[in-house]
Amino acid sequence: MQKKLKAFTESKQFQIFFIGVILFSGLVVGLDSYPEISREYGAILHFLDRIILGLFVFEICIKLISFRPRVHEFFKDGWNIFDFIIVSACFLPFDGQSIIVLRLLRVLRIVRLVGTIPELKLIVNTLLKSIPSLGYIGALLSILFYMYACLGTFLFRENDPIHFESLHLSLLSLFRVATLEDWTDIMYTAIYGCQNYGYSGMGELCKNSNAFPFLGWFYFVSFVLLATFVFLNLFIGVIISNMEDIKQKERLRLDPELANLEKSEANVKVLLNKIKKDMVLLESHISFLENVEEHRLEDKR
Amino acid sequence: MQKKLKAFTESKQFQIFFIGVILFSGLVVGLDSYPEISREYGAILHFLDRIILGLFVFEICIKLISFRPRVHEFFKDGWNIFDFIIVSACFLPFDGQSIIVLRLLRVLRIVRLVGTIPELKLIVNTLLKSIPSLGYIGALLSILFYMYACLGTFLFRENDPIHFESLHLSLLSLFRVATLEDWTDIMYTAIYGCQNYGYSGMGELCKNSNAFPFLGWFYFVSFVLLATFVFLNLFIGVIISNMEDIKQKERLRLDPELANLEKSEANVKVLLNKIKKDMVLLESHISFLENVEEHRLEDKR
Amino acid sequence: MQKKLKAFTESKQFQIFFIGVILFSGLVVGLDSYPEISREYGAILHFLDRIILGLFVFEICIKLISFRPRVHEFFKDGWNIFDFIIVSACFLPFDGQSIIVLRLLRVLRIVRLVGTIPELKLIVNTLLKSIPSLGYIGALLSILFYMYACLGTFLFRENDPIHFESLHLSLLSLFRVATLEDWTDIMYTAIYGCQNYGYSGMGELCKNSNAFPFLGWFYFVSFVLLATFVFLNLFIGVIISNMEDIKQKERLRLDPELANLEKSEANVKVLLNKIKKDMVLLESHISFLENVEEHRLEDKR
Amino acid sequence: MQKKLKAFTESKQFQIFFIGVILFSGLVVGLDSYPEISREYGAILHFLDRIILGLFVFEICIKLISFRPRVHEFFKDGWNIFDFIIVSACFLPFDGQSIIVLRLLRVLRIVRLVGTIPELKLIVNTLLKSIPSLGYIGALLSILFYMYACLGTFLFRENDPIHFESLHLSLLSLFRVATLEDWTDIMYTAIYGCQNYGYSGMGELCKNSNAFPFLGWFYFVSFVLLATFVFLNLFIGVIISNMEDIKQKERLRLDPELANLEKSEANVKVLLNKIKKDMVLLESHISFLENVEEHRLEDKR
Repeated sequence: MQKKLKAFTESKQFQIFFIGVILFSGLVVGLDSYPEISREYGAILHFLDRIILGLFVFEICIKLISFRPRVHEFFKDGWNIFDFIIVSACFLPFDGQSIIVLRLLRVLRIVRLVGTIPELKLIVNTLLKSIPSLGYIGALLSILFYMYACLGTFLFRENDPIHFESLHLSLLSLFRVATLEDWTDIMYTAIYGCQNYGYSGMGELCKNSNAFPFLGWFYFVSFVLLATFVFLNLFIGVIISNMEDIKQKERLRLDPELANLEKSEANVKVLLNKIKKDMVLLESHISFLENVEEHRLEDKR
Repeated sequence: MQKKLKAFTESKQFQIFFIGVILFSGLVVGLDSYPEISREYGAILHFLDRIILGLFVFEICIKLISFRPRVHEFFKDGWNIFDFIIVSACFLPFDGQSIIVLRLLRVLRIVRLVGTIPELKLIVNTLLKSIPSLGYIGALLSILFYMYACLGTFLFRENDPIHFESLHLSLLSLFRVATLEDWTDIMYTAIYGCQNYGYSGMGELCKNSNAFPFLGWFYFVSFVLLATFVFLNLFIGVIISNMEDIKQKERLRLDPELANLEKSEANVKVLLNKIKKDMVLLESHISFLENVEEHRLEDKR
Repeated sequence: MQKKLKAFTESKQFQIFFIGVILFSGLVVGLDSYPEISREYGAILHFLDRIILGLFVFEICIKLISFRPRVHEFFKDGWNIFDFIIVSACFLPFDGQSIIVLRLLRVLRIVRLVGTIPELKLIVNTLLKSIPSLGYIGALLSILFYMYACLGTFLFRENDPIHFESLHLSLLSLFRVATLEDWTDIMYTAIYGCQNYGYSGMGELCKNSNAFPFLGWFYFVSFVLLATFVFLNLFIGVIISNMEDIKQKERLRLDPELANLEKSEANVKVLLNKIKKDMVLLESHISFLENVEEHRLEDKR
Repeated sequence: MQKKLKAFTESKQFQIFFIGVILFSGLVVGLDSYPEISREYGAILHFLDRIILGLFVFEICIKLISFRPRVHEFFKDGWNIFDFIIVSACFLPFDGQSIIVLRLLRVLRIVRLVGTIPELKLIVNTLLKSIPSLGYIGALLSILFYMYACLGTFLFRENDPIHFESLHLSLLSLFRVATLEDWTDIMYTAIYGCQNYGYSGMGELCKNSNAFPFLGWFYFVSFVLLATFVFLNLFIGVIISNMEDIKQKERLRLDPELANLEKSEANVKVLLNKIKKDMVLLESHISFLENVEEHRLEDKR
């Protein structure tokens, strides 16, 4: 009976039904975000939400049972843990203030789609796996950002408090510069001083105008070049290593003999070496045979 | 006679003539968009438009006839269906209001170029074919956008009604953020509240100013990173898989023996296995021969 | 003597000297662009410019002579034609108005560097060669821009005359949208109408405010997706095909035997077929020999 | 004892300890940038800074000693020179004015992480090495920028002094245009003249309004296309050549036999040629043997 339950939870119909339920739960959340619909049909949406929650509880329970007696194996898959937290957290006693958390939980249910559709799970898992291998470029990026943020805070704090007042504000401003979003506004404030650029209408914030004509120019241009370059490096690195991984997997899936072939290809060298030796053996044998024949011919004469 | 008609519609001259007609129809549409030219030469442009439409009708008719008696085969190619709809829709009775649709139809005629020039047809067909294979990354993108849009609507609706009043407005704003277009304006409104940022001169729209210093920061930076990454992944994935496809086709076109070669290359392994076996056979034979010779030599002694 | 002259113009020293002269001419042009320097040292700069021009005339004359008697061969290389035009055009009688052309000519001299440094010449020539092979994607891009420009002019001309008054203005605005530069400003003007967005302070230009809530949304989002995708496709296509070309050339340059090797690799298949036949022959011979030996053994018994 | 010291400085524990010290020094610099923390705990932070500096001096001294008697070898690695300069510069006598340099030095200590973590050192070294090989594209980029900057200064100086007053301002503005940051603002100023666009509220700077309707359009669109293309080329070139380098190194590291294999693969051709000759030999021998056997059989008859 345990086996049957397991087969049932892994059946196509079971999966498609719960993909449908998750999509429907996403639709309910979406409709609920329109104030008019929420006001008029709020009761119905709340009722549907209860049913969806019930179905999710049922799904997790049935899966847990199907794993018995080794229930802990259910929690080996990260996506199962995610499902469990998302669903069980809805039963925590939230008061009025934490309605945001409740809504967040309902929105996060849509992410459960990734864990339910095997192909999406594969893509996301591959992405997540490929991230640590490129962690060093991430470390490089962190060093770059931290260094420029410290420097920027020291240099431009007085002149441009909106963007460089504290270290975390500087980090945010540098992230903005790295996305090339209106980065020249920040640069011109540093080059010309806040009295001449960027603080019109906010004069009370510009207390110590201080122009850095050369340093401002160098700081921002070098950061734009380095940051976009390292970012591009990081992204393209992840994408290409990821695509190769998926291709490899697909190739192996399409042709299960390929894995053997690849091993055998490595053996070709060994084989060719063997042929080489055989040839040497053959040659020596041939010369031996020729000698014998020659001797025989001589014998006959 | 049927055959001759078919050869005629597929001849180089026929194609080039109608490429010229489509380009000319594009020119007419372009000239018509200048008010002065439209006012002065409107009658002539209208007359040319009639002639072009007549030629298009003639082209489709002759093609339909050339397909007889199996006319339905004409509609197997999507580009033919597109041609048929574009041309036949011009005869629908449009009244004054729907002049936009008529103009749209005349502009869409330029797209017929893609269906008429074989190389463009190949590129676009390959592009269209490669899209479903990357559909899962598209699904991932949809989940990402929908989730952030729901969350954004819940969180920022009161504070930033211009960008997050309803779900579809949020989706549009998030698309804007994903293209990195002035995304910090939206973020700063969320971080500082609409009273302090972004609603100057539109104060009456900012009723419930509500600052989200940490949440706003996290929401937008994480979305920018995820969205640009997944978008880049999607685009580069399509481009690279597409380029490999076109290269592969071109290689096969340039060298029709290549397809055979690739098959034979797969057979090299089989061949090498055969050689291996032969070698074993040879070795055993050689040792057998040597034994025989040795015995003979011993016999002689 | 002709040969010596040719060797002289192709010698390392001759090339390096004229690279220096071009760099120096660039420096003179750069210094001349500073008003203070131009005012004070204008006479010296003008004198240096005369000397540089003289050197350029000398260079072209000596090259022309070295090509005698087949002077027309000098004009086979596009870069030589470029040099000739740039230098000889300086002797055309320009009056005060066309001083811009004279300055343009002096600035264009810097481009001569590309023709003088062989490696730069290779890169640029390879780039120029790879462009026609990707011409079809360029055609696709043109169709896309022209279609959207016609449509945009028809739809938004009344509402947004600044960006869509005529076909060429629309093309420029669409190019701006394709670079993602403040594209939402144009979109919001179309969505909300010019009365509500984008024409504050220019109210006299907004005569027929006309909001396209759905069409505006669809027009711009679809154009951004298509244009950035096709642009990226075009650029990456050129870059990758270009990089492969340069790599291939470098590989062949580094190892002149490689070209032979590649031919011979194609012959491996032929060779393997030959081995296969030899093996069959060998097997048949072995079986023949074994028969003979068996018969002999039988004879002995 | 010298050897033991060397082993000690290269031990895992020694490295991890100093990675920790550098990270801690980064934290101290970061905390110091918050005015409240700096005011309250300034003495502690200053004391910690002294300790960190002491540890750095100790690290360099011990490394220098471990290199004795060939101390100059220590300075062969660029990262060691960098460490030495960063640490020793802190002992130079700085007065109040040059506090920025002192702070810069303290921030630059974070870069020492790159030299201390071997994997980061590898990535950065590979990046630095791959730059000269793509230097010609950099030269192309310089020519492009310099030419457009000279041209832009000549053409637009009077009309748009903010962006094109002098050559270095033009270069900065062109860099901004190349990052696509609000480039249309600069273009519209050139197209419509500063009287009509871009100088509202700064009318006193717009003395000689001068519209370049066609030239402005052509100048900026061509520059955007060329600059983004060459920049993308440069970045993607560095990234791909870099990734291949790292992959190659990793492959060789993972499989030390691979280097041999690659050599042997080149030898396969030689081997196959040998097999070919052997086969010819074999064939001739077989035909010889057959002749002999035939003769023997004839003899017997």
